[in-house]
Amino acid sequence: MSDLARYIRNIPDFPKPGIQFKDITTLLQNPFAFKLCLDELEACVGKSVDVVVGTESRGFIFGAPLADRLGAGFVPVRKPGKLPDKTYSESYDLEYGTDTLEIHRDAIAKGQKVVIIDDLLATGGTMVATTKLVEKAGGHIEAILFVVELEFLNGRTKLADYNVKSLVKF
Amino acid sequence: MSDLARYIRNIPDFPKPGIQFKDITTLLQNPFAFKLCLDELEACVGKSVDVVVGTESRGFIFGAPLADRLGAGFVPVRKPGKLPDKTYSESYDLEYGTDTLEIHRDAIAKGQKVVIIDDLLATGGTMVATTKLVEKAGGHIEAILFVVELEFLNGRTKLADYNVKSLVKF
Repeated sequence: MSDLARYIRNIPDFPKPGIQFKDITTLLQNPFAFKLCLDELEACVGKSVDVVVGTESRGFIFGAPLADRLGAGFVPVRKPGKLPDKTYSESYDLEYGTDTLEIHRDAIAKGQKVVIIDDLLATGGTMVATTKLVEKAGGHIEAILFVVELEFLNGRTKLADYNVKSLVKF
Repeated sequence: MSDLARYIRNIPDFPKPGIQFKDITTLLQNPFAFKLCLDELEACVGKSVDVVVGTESRGFIFGAPLADRLGAGFVPVRKPGKLPDKTYSESYDLEYGTDTLEIHRDAIAKGQKVVIIDDLLATGGTMVATTKLVEKAGGHIEAILFVVELEFLNGRTKLADYNVKSLVKF
């Protein structure tokens, strides 16, 4: 277990009763912990990549500095209506209803090596949609990284075709 | 004028007719341009700072790597209901209606040196609310940075008390 766990705050009953929310803002605001987290993420990427994809919006906070460190481009996957040019979109099921994510059609060149990152692996729905978007756009997914994984939700089983790594498991 | 302007795509009539939207995703996805942008932002910060504050959500894309480069913490300013612990909040006027931003009450220690960053200075409403949040939380604002400034909207006049820098002006 990474030493990072101690910097993540547990907020009971957020956003609703019974949920133990893992608050990464306490990690981010600590310069030592934020650097350690980025060091560990960087170490998870064994080879050179062309693009880091981050999912709105906490994925941006880890994906953008990882792209900077790797000398890669950064591509945001966003909620509907935020990306101004032509997009691909993917919908996925929530507990109640559905949600949709988008990527710019020209965001990734065919065959580019991609690392995807998000802060949290829960049920995996968001990340499955993101993998579909990256592959529609032509990218080859080298790895999928998470800062926190909630193992009891088994989200990893939905991503069995990929190289999935997480830093902190609860 | 920074050479960065050439990497920013203009999207006419987004999100509504008559608006020329400055799309920074073409800058982000180009590793050379993204690095150049971060080099220029880093050069704007003359002295050591404790905290970089980024505004949801494009501010995260520039703020997090800037914090990493400066060895600072990163603090997100977010839309209502996203931050799980106690917050300060500030509302500001939009063209139609109002919007609200929040910061965690314990995000910044009293007297810490803060740089705030967002992608775009338009009318300045978002940034004025962000400065109030940072000061309520106890931070001292050393500089406010933008990647793009729309000079014809005169947002800078609302921020006259601060050291404001932007990389690309339209």
